[in-house]
Amino acid sequence: MTAINRRRLLGLGAAGAAGVAAAGAGAFATRSVLEGPPPAAAATTSDPVSFYGERQAGIVTPAQDRLHFVSFDVITKKREELVELLQEWTAAAARMTQGKDAGTFGAVGGAPEAPPDDTGEALGLPASGLTLTIGFGPSLFDDRFGLAAKKPAALADLPKFPGEDLKPEISGGDICIQACAHDPQVAVHAIRNLARIGFGRVSIRWSQLGFGRTSSTSRSQATPRNLFGFKDGTNNLKLEDAALLKDQLWVAPGDGPAWMAGGSYMVTRKIRMNIETWDRTSLVEQEEIFGRDKGEGAPMGKKREFDVIDFAAKKPDGTPVIPMDSHVRLAHPSTHGNAHLLRRGYNYVEGSDGLGRLDAGLFFIAYQRDPHKQYVPIQMELARKDKLNEYIKHISSGLFACPPGLRDAGDYWGRALFA
Amino acid sequence: MTAINRRRLLGLGAAGAAGVAAAGAGAFATRSVLEGPPPAAAATTSDPVSFYGERQAGIVTPAQDRLHFVSFDVITKKREELVELLQEWTAAAARMTQGKDAGTFGAVGGAPEAPPDDTGEALGLPASGLTLTIGFGPSLFDDRFGLAAKKPAALADLPKFPGEDLKPEISGGDICIQACAHDPQVAVHAIRNLARIGFGRVSIRWSQLGFGRTSSTSRSQATPRNLFGFKDGTNNLKLEDAALLKDQLWVAPGDGPAWMAGGSYMVTRKIRMNIETWDRTSLVEQEEIFGRDKGEGAPMGKKREFDVIDFAAKKPDGTPVIPMDSHVRLAHPSTHGNAHLLRRGYNYVEGSDGLGRLDAGLFFIAYQRDPHKQYVPIQMELARKDKLNEYIKHISSGLFACPPGLRDAGDYWGRALFA
Ligand code: HEM
Ligand code: HEM
Repeated sequence: MTAINRRRLLGLGAAGAAGVAAAGAGAFATRSVLEGPPPAAAATTSDPVSFYGERQAGIVTPAQDRLHFVSFDVITKKREELVELLQEWTAAAARMTQGKDAGTFGAVGGAPEAPPDDTGEALGLPASGLTLTIGFGPSLFDDRFGLAAKKPAALADLPKFPGEDLKPEISGGDICIQACAHDPQVAVHAIRNLARIGFGRVSIRWSQLGFGRTSSTSRSQATPRNLFGFKDGTNNLKLEDAALLKDQLWVAPGDGPAWMAGGSYMVTRKIRMNIETWDRTSLVEQEEIFGRDKGEGAPMGKKREFDVIDFAAKKPDGTPVIPMDSHVRLAHPSTHGNAHLLRRGYNYVEGSDGLGRLDAGLFFIAYQRDPHKQYVPIQMELARKDKLNEYIKHISSGLFACPPGLRDAGDYWGRALFA
Repeated sequence: MTAINRRRLLGLGAAGAAGVAAAGAGAFATRSVLEGPPPAAAATTSDPVSFYGERQAGIVTPAQDRLHFVSFDVITKKREELVELLQEWTAAAARMTQGKDAGTFGAVGGAPEAPPDDTGEALGLPASGLTLTIGFGPSLFDDRFGLAAKKPAALADLPKFPGEDLKPEISGGDICIQACAHDPQVAVHAIRNLARIGFGRVSIRWSQLGFGRTSSTSRSQATPRNLFGFKDGTNNLKLEDAALLKDQLWVAPGDGPAWMAGGSYMVTRKIRMNIETWDRTSLVEQEEIFGRDKGEGAPMGKKREFDVIDFAAKKPDGTPVIPMDSHVRLAHPSTHGNAHLLRRGYNYVEGSDGLGRLDAGLFFIAYQRDPHKQYVPIQMELARKDKLNEYIKHISSGLFACPPGLRDAGDYWGRALFA
């Protein structure tokens, strides 16, 4: 897509690179607009995904392999400073997603006596499909920045769910940024540079690394597996489901405040998985818990992964083939008046827990048009009945309003919100 | 290399797969021996690396992209049980490194009423260059297993280094296993299945995920960057340095107990990096701290990355071009009677630290012939003088004896030690 990226810049001498970078900085913003709608995905795992478009990238973009997610507390009390930061972030995000540095790198256009405007660890790496997706949390709409009147009803607090054990220090936050990329160093670099730019204005509340995707969001992708060994994402909302996306994923103009029309709401849940207990559970029981077979991922009683689930099917003894308390039955749209989620989670492992067990699980991310009509009823049903609950624990929660995409370089993250 | 891997198995029906798996299980062990010396590296990032050979894979194997490292405490008191575990581990490691399951998967040769002998999350993934490297820690040689007389002098405790702040709960351990692969799910799967197999006999003491390699260990690899943005691994010991490897990496027959001849000693150090402070340091200062330039990685005063460092060079004002307290000067073999290390570390990020900063750094791994003649003097010099110390903190430490490789399927991890 872009002719100039970090890899190219690096091959040039310092003087040459400075010239090209200057030319490039002006050129790339308009180029992607001229090119028409952003590509749904990078052509290869190295290529860039367009930053501009009707929707933010990183939602229906076929899920990249790696995640670095951050939630910030805003520490400045000045609305102008926050707006300025959002503008600076937007410019850096536009650059980084195209495989460029966050700012001028060191002596190349900068001053060696100053800290570099890019931290350097992604020098030489391609764009790697990086997407940066911003979301605004409920707490941003308190009395600090005069945004109370613009708070969407959809950002009302999630209810308390049975069995959850949420840690406030890794929950919530004023602003989140989801960085997905095929190279973890590129995702880490992006979040780290946004944090660096935000110094004195925002502070990292929590951050989360996901080493591997647990969901597919496009029919072009193979379904990956979660840490319980099952295919995850089979019956996910997918990029190709145009009508469902319109109905279930994207906020419609009449849904709430105008600034969110065309956006989507994101729910994050860090779910610790007790993999040692799971690993001592029989295969039959594991499959009954999910309602799918482990090897192929087919619904129980069917052969192939994408065969349609038959919830009415009965065994010879009259009991349902898909158990009543199985995860896919409890979570299925037919159980919730056709409520869908676009799941986009990642596996995590964070050392061990001091009790001889891996500290591992799923960083669940789901996008939807209205969390109170989608995530909440589904999770309430799961929290009450899912046999899976014996093996998992929800330990953090986040809810964020992700506005629509930016049309061009004149636009910035949150413009309509602060207008 | 191997004709049968997880990807292939999955394409077959259950009955067919069972037959092939049975044939394969007997066949693969001898096949790689017949094929001659193991390849130094997989041909692609999907291919397997040979498990058998004169040396353990995962030391000079060109550093794979991802790491999952685990340190176990042995909880059984019975020597036979430990030996049995090492035999079971060896069989599973031989399978997994060739892209197969840890054991029979579910109904394929197993019983659906039993927990699967493989946890399943790597089903369908190729071998991904997985290597599994075992090491025995000093504490294994206490009075529990009758190994005291076999303890190498090289496993004597490391001295306390100025400035370190080691956490015992993430340091040491009886046995470590380093899993490196190009796919993190494959590395995580391997460690998790070894832990599962070890249930009741070992307990995870600590584990560490590394999302990206920070060193190159072969001239065929591009030098990656650490989280301070500098190329790391330029002047590393490399696969191609045959004479130096013999002199500096591999334990020679006369060096200590016979069971370690042909092996190597591993030092691990988890080093927290204060990246926020670093990011506010000027480019000039950053470069003076390392003694190399940031963009290209050239020694100061030189142009290209692999130009030879000239420690004698002076600036017009008579001060040395490479500062006296720069990292490369303090760590260079010429400062330590030609002592080298083979560095094989990984970047880590583990959320944030509750103070608004990323919890990130380097999981340093170094291999060598004698840690007390190599790691210790180098680290002592660095701990005393390195300007880098303002930005880093050593928070965990490990020392492990990694025996030579296994010749064939009749051999197992630790056979010579327990003989
Ligand atoms: C560690 C926790 C979880 C695990 C391991 C897990 C795993 C799975 C698996 C294996 C499937 C079947 C394959 C598929 O269609 O994707 C599935 C389906 C699904 N899950 Fe989960 N899940 C977890 C938590 C959740 C949560 C918290 C929610 C939402 C509240 C959720 C909502 C769904 C939905 C909507 C489906 C699709 C059901 C269908 O339409 O067939 N899951 N999950
Ligand atoms: C966070 C901590 C560290 C960082 C960021 C770091 C970074 C670097 C960098 C950028 C280089 C120059 C490129 C190269 O030749 O690889 C280097 C070289 C080196 N480092 Fe480190 N290092 C760290 C800790 C250590 C430690 C703990 C040791 C051993 C005690 C060590 C030993 C070496 C050696 C032996 C060299 C090669 C010097 C030469 O021969 O030129 N480093 N390191």
